[in-house]
Amino acid sequence: MSTLGAELTVVGQGRIEIRLPFSAQLTQQHGYLHAGAVISVLDSACGYAALSLAPDNKEVLTVELKVNLLSPAVGNLLVARAQVKRAGKTLTVCTGDAFAITGSEEKVVATMLATIMAISI
Amino acid sequence: MSTLGAELTVVGQGRIEIRLPFSAQLTQQHGYLHAGAVISVLDSACGYAALSLAPDNKEVLTVELKVNLLSPAVGNLLVARAQVKRAGKTLTVCTGDAFAITGSEEKVVATMLATIMAISI
Amino acid sequence: MSTLGAELTVVGQGRIEIRLPFSAQLTQQHGYLHAGAVISVLDSACGYAALSLAPDNKEVLTVELKVNLLSPAVGNLLVARAQVKRAGKTLTVCTGDAFAITGSEEKVVATMLATIMAISI
Amino acid sequence: MSTLGAELTVVGQGRIEIRLPFSAQLTQQHGYLHAGAVISVLDSACGYAALSLAPDNKEVLTVELKVNLLSPAVGNLLVARAQVKRAGKTLTVCTGDAFAITGSEEKVVATMLATIMAISI
Repeated sequence: MSTLGAELTVVGQGRIEIRLPFSAQLTQQHGYLHAGAVISVLDSACGYAALSLAPDNKEVLTVELKVNLLSPAVGNLLVARAQVKRAGKTLTVCTGDAFAITGSEEKVVATMLATIMAISI
Repeated sequence: MSTLGAELTVVGQGRIEIRLPFSAQLTQQHGYLHAGAVISVLDSACGYAALSLAPDNKEVLTVELKVNLLSPAVGNLLVARAQVKRAGKTLTVCTGDAFAITGSEEKVVATMLATIMAISI
Repeated sequence: MSTLGAELTVVGQGRIEIRLPFSAQLTQQHGYLHAGAVISVLDSACGYAALSLAPDNKEVLTVELKVNLLSPAVGNLLVARAQVKRAGKTLTVCTGDAFAITGSEEKVVATMLATIMAISI
Repeated sequence: MSTLGAELTVVGQGRIEIRLPFSAQLTQQHGYLHAGAVISVLDSACGYAALSLAPDNKEVLTVELKVNLLSPAVGNLLVARAQVKRAGKTLTVCTGDAFAITGSEEKVVATMLATIMAISI
């Protein structure tokens, strides 16, 4: 995430927010943020949300994810918010939404439902 | 849905609730509601949520759905709640949760993310 | 599956076929097999495919599934074919296709990608 | 894709292969290709597969995708192969697999099921 320029702005119990300022390198010819970048940020937010509820000796990896791309990501900033839907001993299910922000306007651009696995370090 | 014994209990703009009392025919040997029944009810709730925002001359069909089964559906009643995440002219994206109810206790048993298409009648 | 009238017709190592004759009870007003029935049969085929590769002291449950409904299921018989994509110690990933058969004609009606978990009995 | 260093190596009717050599920039501390890169390449392969069957005046965009991450992407080269499962007038469903290649060894690392929409240019 740090190579993309993303920042983890909120960490709660099972709730995460990641903010990614748009950069020339991550945008397409039309000024849209690449879908791959949107998906990566949402995936990371889901992973961190699961990790925030996992025991200290665990790390997490994404088993699978499904994402609907709802609108082109046009704006200055991407904000991804993820939360744990159900935390299990082995598997945790998370949902997340990504919003493109232009000034004070926020528009949902993608929504994700993902399964995360906790593994012993 | 009527053959399953389901009832549409709430209809709002883009929000639907369907209730399905457990019956012997729909439960497995352990008294769990079959996953297929849970998925069918969630799918119907997503479809009706999309339909509630569609023009009068349209009907809807499910393009695809993804569902995470979170817990066995044990209880007396299944309640599925779906809402439109984003309504488009052709495609509408819906999310829905299903809960198993035992007395006054409600437990989430499944969560769905689905894509619904509007077609002209 | 037996209550639906389905039959497991092929069992291989990680490959399963389930056949379901259409019945009045499972079809809609237009003679289509209900999407819920198609999904249930595909889910079962994926589960049995995973189970065919699991150790004897394990049973399986579906963690999540995603299905694209490709065409209305019109015909006399539904055939679901599933295979293991990757078998792991805890999680197995399966794909499956469902076909509606009318006489000698076979038409794909749905495709599934599912995650199955092995649990100790 | 070109900024990632990816190359479209096969174009058939509804079948696409994209090859991406691993680079330091795309790999994690353990030498794995980032999941985000794997997903982006698979998504592109699915999109091009759909585009290869679309009329000349159409372009495509991904409505939604679901991907199972099967193994860490360790190797020298990623190969993504996608094919159209069903081409419709508006929506096309594609599947794709990604393989990590080390010398002559090929290992499946991810599998995708995606819905692609054709839109008029």
